[in-house]
Amino acid sequence: MTIDDIRDAAERIRGSIVHTPLLPSLWADPARPLWLKPENLQSIGAFKVRGAFNAIGKLDERARARGVVAYSSGNHAQAVAYAARRFGIPAHIVMPDVTPRIKVDNTREHGAEVVLVPIAERESTAHALVERLGAVLIPPFDHPDIIAGQGTIGLEIGQDLADVELVLVPVSGGGLASGIGVGVKALCPNAAVYAVEPELAGDTRESFERGSVVEWPVELRARTIADGLRSQPSELTFAHLRTVLDGVITVSEDEIRSAVRTLATSARLVAEPAGAVSLAGYLHHADELPAGRTVAVVSGGNIDPALLADVLGA
Amino acid sequence: MTIDDIRDAAERIRGSIVHTPLLPSLWADPARPLWLKPENLQSIGAFKVRGAFNAIGKLDERARARGVVAYSSGNHAQAVAYAARRFGIPAHIVMPDVTPRIKVDNTREHGAEVVLVPIAERESTAHALVERLGAVLIPPFDHPDIIAGQGTIGLEIGQDLADVELVLVPVSGGGLASGIGVGVKALCPNAAVYAVEPELAGDTRESFERGSVVEWPVELRARTIADGLRSQPSELTFAHLRTVLDGVITVSEDEIRSAVRTLATSARLVAEPAGAVSLAGYLHHADELPAGRTVAVVSGGNIDPALLADVLGA
Repeated sequence: MTIDDIRDAAERIRGSIVHTPLLPSLWADPARPLWLKPENLQSIGAFKVRGAFNAIGKLDERARARGVVAYSSGNHAQAVAYAARRFGIPAHIVMPDVTPRIKVDNTREHGAEVVLVPIAERESTAHALVERLGAVLIPPFDHPDIIAGQGTIGLEIGQDLADVELVLVPVSGGGLASGIGVGVKALCPNAAVYAVEPELAGDTRESFERGSVVEWPVELRARTIADGLRSQPSELTFAHLRTVLDGVITVSEDEIRSAVRTLATSARLVAEPAGAVSLAGYLHHADELPAGRTVAVVSGGNIDPALLADVLGA
Repeated sequence: MTIDDIRDAAERIRGSIVHTPLLPSLWADPARPLWLKPENLQSIGAFKVRGAFNAIGKLDERARARGVVAYSSGNHAQAVAYAARRFGIPAHIVMPDVTPRIKVDNTREHGAEVVLVPIAERESTAHALVERLGAVLIPPFDHPDIIAGQGTIGLEIGQDLADVELVLVPVSGGGLASGIGVGVKALCPNAAVYAVEPELAGDTRESFERGSVVEWPVELRARTIADGLRSQPSELTFAHLRTVLDGVITVSEDEIRSAVRTLATSARLVAEPAGAVSLAGYLHHADELPAGRTVAVVSGGNIDPALLADVLGA
């Protein structure tokens, strides 16, 4: 996956996604001017549409016509459902039977067939559907076309702020962080790219320090409020991360909640906890980061309204 | 004030403001596709920076160096304070002594000198400051340079969505609505432009029906939750409004609160009540509006966090 793949992806998904603006933050530390990249403003509320449109758009027409399958309970589910509808093809989304009703409903509203299964059977059910339907599996992060799609964010950052010095990006499965890293480093070789994750799901930091993927049990990763950051990198994404990241930092649960509040009150953006970790890193971990012109990627905004109300009232 | 003035303004303020994207809304009525124009994402949280940068930028350098004066307790105060600092000139902002502390503090944080006076003395104090300092008064809406600055929003809409059929814009003093109206009608002569205001501050609708400015007592206009929409048009802005508007509709307080909630949960945007009236009109008054491709201008996002929490928890 190279910058050329990202440029191809950008061409392919233009018209299907929002080229989000860089929003300057007046309240930033003057030594570290800050811009927010609000991917929560994509149609389904998260960056995942970029990868989904690229992966589905790249299929040859006959393969695409047989439809797509994905397994996800989060933003990837809605992204694939939405992109499939825009292509006029069927989508089957496999979700754990414990998925909150609202997420199931949202995915169905995009026209997808939702298949609810016990959580342990997600992958096998998805693969069985692929077999039976002749459909194509669209993975959440572990695929070059997905990584290239998310990488278009890095391309836009490099085009819109050529003298950027630091990019902060959430990391979980690593598709977003590795795609952005490749895009930014190609256009701005002197810019640093740091990934940010919750302490409670700090597997990537540990993996990065050891130089190989360290498995964290899912029940450990599930402790964080940032439900979008409970995956861990694959061998593919981790290999990219080692090449393009300058560091990985972790943030506390309180720092995440505080950043959700700051985004709402000072940037007028509704962010989900996963979407706020990059700002949490900027605000609370300056000592672990290079100074200079900084972009923080706000990756998504699908937060439970009750949680947002709680954070605002605190 | 013509489209040429708006084009000049766009050139002048480029680099000082955000060219906000048009955000497509997946949840819109298919017969009336909807895009949001999120001016709440400007640096100070409202469109007012456009007019302020245009008016201050257009002054000749010697006049500008003596500084600017404004009277406002709202977004115009912060816009003038912020623009003045960017130009490196002094700003005096006259505010009523009942202005909430947070708004006074925000204005001071931009480097302005805040002058607190009894509400009845706002204008006279501002004019006295202008005399004493040799400074220039930057009015909130009643000036061609302000109208042209706000009109750049209409220019962007016409450039980014050439086949737009309806634009919904909040109206109060009328600078925003008349500027956008001139911009949109110049680029898209077949598009309709409707202004939206609270029923409780429905002076513009009444004026529009009568064909002349009808004064509503300030205590009537002050009843609405939309504190950004408590002014009324001047002769200058009203003359523009009569030329460019196709209609004026009003929305209830409940509809405004509901639209604030929808913007947060479905568009991930924090809007103040004034910023949500255009969406309230779209959602609740379809029968009074033409169908077709619609843009709703979200004018600002400076809402009390406790009010937002309340609306989300309801």
